[in-house]
Amino acid sequence: MTPPLLVQFAGGDHGPWRVTEQRTLCGEPLPAVPRLEVLEGAHAPPPASWVLRASTGNLRYTTRAERDDLRQAQEGLNRPASTRAVLIPIRKTPAWWELAQDERRAILEEQSRHIAIGREYMPAIARRLHHGRELGEPFDFLTWFEFAPEDAPAFDKLLARLRETAEWAFVDREVELHLTRA
Amino acid sequence: MTPPLLVQFAGGDHGPWRVTEQRTLCGEPLPAVPRLEVLEGAHAPPPASWVLRASTGNLRYTTRAERDDLRQAQEGLNRPASTRAVLIPIRKTPAWWELAQDERRAILEEQSRHIAIGREYMPAIARRLHHGRELGEPFDFLTWFEFAPEDAPAFDKLLARLRETAEWAFVDREVELHLTRA
Repeated sequence: MTPPLLVQFAGGDHGPWRVTEQRTLCGEPLPAVPRLEVLEGAHAPPPASWVLRASTGNLRYTTRAERDDLRQAQEGLNRPASTRAVLIPIRKTPAWWELAQDERRAILEEQSRHIAIGREYMPAIARRLHHGRELGEPFDFLTWFEFAPEDAPAFDKLLARLRETAEWAFVDREVELHLTRA
Repeated sequence: MTPPLLVQFAGGDHGPWRVTEQRTLCGEPLPAVPRLEVLEGAHAPPPASWVLRASTGNLRYTTRAERDDLRQAQEGLNRPASTRAVLIPIRKTPAWWELAQDERRAILEEQSRHIAIGREYMPAIARRLHHGRELGEPFDFLTWFEFAPEDAPAFDKLLARLRETAEWAFVDREVELHLTRA
């Protein structure tokens, strides 16, 4: 399906993903749930403890050269071996959104190497970014990662590296849900 | 109110703006309506022939230097003398959205001078841009312009100049509603 694709992440008692760990890194927590369901496209909101909505969209910072390299390197979602997933909802500060485009790009990539760090973990760690800010949602971004169990340590390393960057000083709410395909 | 601000533009029999002219530049027309209502923030959709929804948001292409200059130059909406308004809903082609960030910026500003052309008509022509794409709306952008009657010829010139640019080759649906405060 052509983007933007609306995706709903519903936390509650149903869904094919079992929540094995739920952590709040900063800001208000999300109520703890045992299961997660992911619904793509137009659906009535499912019965759930909470539903987070966001849309895939066009690239906001990536240059043509970076995009071509990423497309070469990455693999898609739903690989049979990808029985682990992590959902990371993030909100950035008003100060971030007040920055101009060139300032945000400089922090994200020239200073923080966000795109380059993610690239190093491809194709093992597949991901899809969803934008929630324009939808009036509580989180600006929902990033969905998928990988095989043996790549879980690499994923932890990727996360730790990103969280040390200058960009992460602009994150004021962040939650982490670790998931296993039930 | 801090962005994003959700705005609904409702075309029908009600509202403080009288439609004096409605044109389709390309793509599917919008049903003709005599009045327009503009609703900011969370509201149930009003009874109307059609309702277009979009959100204000962060700057997508503007650099810090350009932003500072624009802020200095521009005036806000709702000036008492601004009894004319124009709403321009636009959709861009899949080819546009497929471009990387640096390619879109180069077409928008380095080639087409979109930001610089708009700047020349400040403060007379005030405007606010709203993003609809992530909301699954039929138009990617709704731009709202406000000005005094004597600045209508300048506005026409601004529009004509933008429509001659390389950027406009990526527009595949565009409608124009001219409005007068009733």
